Amino acid sequence: MSSNSLRIVPIGGLGEIGKNMMAYEYDDQILVVDTGIMFPENDMLGIDYIIPDFQYLINRRTKVVGIVITHGHEDHTGAINHVMDEIDAPIYATPLTRGLLEVKLARGGHLGKANLNTVKAGEKVKIGVFEVEFAHVCHSIPDGVALGITTPEGLIVHTGDYKFDHTPVDNWPTDYAKLSEWAGRGVLALMADSTNADTPGWTPSERRIEPAFDQVFRQAPGRILVASFASLISRMQQVAKAAYDHGRKLAFVGTSMRENAKMATKLGYLDLPDGLVIPLDDALKMKPKEVVLMCTGSQGEPTSIMGRLAAGRNRQFDVQEGDTIVLSSHPIPGNEESVYGTINKLFQRGADVIYDPILPVHVSGHASQEEMKLMIHLVRPKFLVPIHGELRHLRQHGKMAEELGIPAENIAIVENGTIIEFEDETMRISNRIPGGYVFVDGSTVGAVGPAVMRERETLAQDGFVTISLLLDKDLKQRRDPEIITRGYVYKGDMASFLVDIDEVVDETLEQNRNGRSRQNGHDLEKEIEQAIRKVLASNSSRRPQLFVHVDIV
Amino acid sequence: MSSNSLRIVPIGGLGEIGKNMMAYEYDDQILVVDTGIMFPENDMLGIDYIIPDFQYLINRRTKVVGIVITHGHEDHTGAINHVMDEIDAPIYATPLTRGLLEVKLARGGHLGKANLNTVKAGEKVKIGVFEVEFAHVCHSIPDGVALGITTPEGLIVHTGDYKFDHTPVDNWPTDYAKLSEWAGRGVLALMADSTNADTPGWTPSERRIEPAFDQVFRQAPGRILVASFASLISRMQQVAKAAYDHGRKLAFVGTSMRENAKMATKLGYLDLPDGLVIPLDDALKMKPKEVVLMCTGSQGEPTSIMGRLAAGRNRQFDVQEGDTIVLSSHPIPGNEESVYGTINKLFQRGADVIYDPILPVHVSGHASQEEMKLMIHLVRPKFLVPIHGELRHLRQHGKMAEELGIPAENIAIVENGTIIEFEDETMRISNRIPGGYVFVDGSTVGAVGPAVMRERETLAQDGFVTISLLLDKDLKQRRDPEIITRGYVYKGDMASFLVDIDEVVDETLEQNRNGRSRQNGHDLEKEIEQAIRKVLASNSSRRPQLFVHVDIV
Repeated sequence: MSSNSLRIVPIGGLGEIGKNMMAYEYDDQILVVDTGIMFPENDMLGIDYIIPDFQYLINRRTKVVGIVITHGHEDHTGAINHVMDEIDAPIYATPLTRGLLEVKLARGGHLGKANLNTVKAGEKVKIGVFEVEFAHVCHSIPDGVALGITTPEGLIVHTGDYKFDHTPVDNWPTDYAKLSEWAGRGVLALMADSTNADTPGWTPSERRIEPAFDQVFRQAPGRILVASFASLISRMQQVAKAAYDHGRKLAFVGTSMRENAKMATKLGYLDLPDGLVIPLDDALKMKPKEVVLMCTGSQGEPTSIMGRLAAGRNRQFDVQEGDTIVLSSHPIPGNEESVYGTINKLFQRGADVIYDPILPVHVSGHASQEEMKLMIHLVRPKFLVPIHGELRHLRQHGKMAEELGIPAENIAIVENGTIIEFEDETMRISNRIPGGYVFVDGSTVGAVGPAVMRERETLAQDGFVTISLLLDKDLKQRRDPEIITRGYVYKGDMASFLVDIDEVVDETLEQNRNGRSRQNGHDLEKEIEQAIRKVLASNSSRRPQLFVHVDIV
Repeated sequence: MSSNSLRIVPIGGLGEIGKNMMAYEYDDQILVVDTGIMFPENDMLGIDYIIPDFQYLINRRTKVVGIVITHGHEDHTGAINHVMDEIDAPIYATPLTRGLLEVKLARGGHLGKANLNTVKAGEKVKIGVFEVEFAHVCHSIPDGVALGITTPEGLIVHTGDYKFDHTPVDNWPTDYAKLSEWAGRGVLALMADSTNADTPGWTPSERRIEPAFDQVFRQAPGRILVASFASLISRMQQVAKAAYDHGRKLAFVGTSMRENAKMATKLGYLDLPDGLVIPLDDALKMKPKEVVLMCTGSQGEPTSIMGRLAAGRNRQFDVQEGDTIVLSSHPIPGNEESVYGTINKLFQRGADVIYDPILPVHVSGHASQEEMKLMIHLVRPKFLVPIHGELRHLRQHGKMAEELGIPAENIAIVENGTIIEFEDETMRISNRIPGGYVFVDGSTVGAVGPAVMRERETLAQDGFVTISLLLDKDLKQRRDPEIITRGYVYKGDMASFLVDIDEVVDETLEQNRNGRSRQNGHDLEKEIEQAIRKVLASNSSRRPQLFVHVDIV
């Protein structure tokens, strides 16, 4: 491929594109946009979080000229410490995003060495061969930006996460003028958020939540607990407003919640009246009707405050009769079971639980179909690359663009790892790079790859059985077979086929003793394994993982 | 407790109530309502389906005077063969429900011996001490009924699954008159469907689907595949109508789909114009634009037609470029990941996939909040027992009833297994019976209980490691430790802690050799296990299941 082309590299595994990390590459220079994490789905067993495999960037670390972060949410910032471990490049972000990155970098021990640069919405910055302009967009966190990236091949618009909220919590609407100005200059390609591409209409304003909060705060007979993401700064502002209006004090629970609130307040993105926020210890001493606690755990994560409250394992306080708990979030796809399970448990503990659709206590931070069409009309790109979403969302986004007149051949629907190349006003789907996701489990990064995940799935299907035999030289058993099994059948039920197992083992040994096919220990193991496999299949119609070990002494 | 009381026994496990099976017990007589199955959630590993544990009924089998089935859906009929295996009692159902039960019983080899009785909506039947009246209710299958059960303690109304559809597909609205008549007689308790208790408003009519189908059928450039449940007879009617209107032939794919369609047609509940339905083989030979295939798999079940098509493992035909696939269903809670994964794969294979909310190709068959309130006002019960739903739904239902004036103490919110007792116009939450669910995995019923499920979960979290040592009498190793591991770490990574494992094993053996604490084989195993556990924890921060076996020979 030509080195004088613009190469857009969406980093991560199949099934998504560009949600967490992308790279724009020209010549020997690479601009990285976002460094996010994914949350594990229900069937990602034992995994804490997932980072994109950015080996492509590690292999080219000297070429990375800068890292731009579009906004301060985990799925765009969460891998920053992992990236800093490998790549030494300046970071560019708006003030709030920078502040939240500082919190994160400090925890990862990288704050000292990180080269952080503030660029305000409306400003531009030269990063190597790229000139990057920041245009304000609404989202569920303040200070998010879309990027206008002027490259030698043309102007690329990268929306980041956005919605066209006409009444945003911070009264700062999306920068229509800048988007239109870019259109006037001529946009080569639009990389646009597809998260809600299957949602018709227009996403409601964040303000829509306020009447619902008002109703909850008016009616709650005791404490109010609001669960949300620690990086949902706009929601903090709304909870603070409702608390103030209803004469309640507010306590932020949990380190990340507290640190983010502090940083956002310091930078002026969160307006908390004096005396409103109090420490948790003080709040717990007040009358229930006088306080609001805001905490993490809206996805039912077992280690979050809300997860621990549901399980009755929270250290500082418990759910009590009369509590009103507001889940101000939607389940991330794949987390529905865990969220609804948490809700049921909270009800069981005597709380009243309020969640959408009971009351509209959450709205999406992403554009719906009509907004996505508006974005295309405002930016008027030659090419469209739907990003952020599963394949079904990308296709819907593509269909809408076709309806708006963008020719099908100018729309690239690809998954992470497929490079899109622009040269002389033409687009080409280029080669695939190796990549994927790195599963982070406990403190071990990367030790759990897809192979181990597959092993876990197989184990989870039918369990395993190991059988160890100790034989003398005459192939006589010196002790009973030692059998270990988990996840296969009840031990009691297993007992009923032990007779059969004993029988086939004895049979196999007998045949070998009689010299029918005198085997070495290894072949004998295989032969016994096959025989036992038949017994298990005929007794249970299931196929546990089976391991046979034979010692001949 | 008094034997002269009415005892209502919701059968099954915690987390739900009365969805699949309930029993009404008076004196020595038991009336069973419904015999359904549950579908496994994502985290129920390796399970095909789930039946309520009805040991309570098995222990009292001679007391069961009858089994009434409210409608023909799997979650109300699916366990009929399991029940027939144990209990010999007459079954009562409306004509279509009976027909669908016959299909099921024939497959289970029980049709010959089952005592099936048809009761039409509007009719009543005496079953032991109970008099049961059938009132027609709308749902997503024709011929569903609510039950008015006259007991010695009073009249109980059991809604079954229902909605108040004013324009149902079969033009047969819910029987308001009968519900009101019951109210006039005085209803002791209402047992009412709570499935959609957190959905505000009124569930749209089944008819709402028709314009969406019309649009899909007008625009589809090739074949149309509609995925739904095999027992969603109303949906079959709507697909047939759209096929007819747009000049396409219709083929039902899969045994259950075909048999149910045949039975419903025979009984007059499905109106299929002559020549509309053709065998699949014929359909596959026609031009794509001339056919519609209706098949199972709307939940992404891997063994369904749609699941096999998504995976490219269907025998008779594959998804082809230009296919339009309509998922006419919503994901059952807990199945979202698998459904959306299937959609993505179908897109990948070149199909266009239509699902709600892209177009309204499905509506719920259950009442929403305003309908639930209407049911309460129509029936005017003294007591309310919300059934069918998770705890969160039952609570919402209870809250609504309170708003309508039913005193909180007259509302019983309990989960399966808790007996509710009525005597002299009073209600009492009575004792709990043992129970739960039986997980059906492959052909083995019941071998996979909660304990095995928990083992599978644990295995799926961090995998397992087994280590077997062969020692001589001097506690010297006669061969290298034999290590088996799955789902823990990469074998390559494991190698790096083998050195540490060897070391702690040698150390432990050395200490024992030196007589510090001469141990028997069993204690030695435990000691080695502890030492290895520390090595694994310090190397990986994970806790696989660990098994150590030592032979001393």
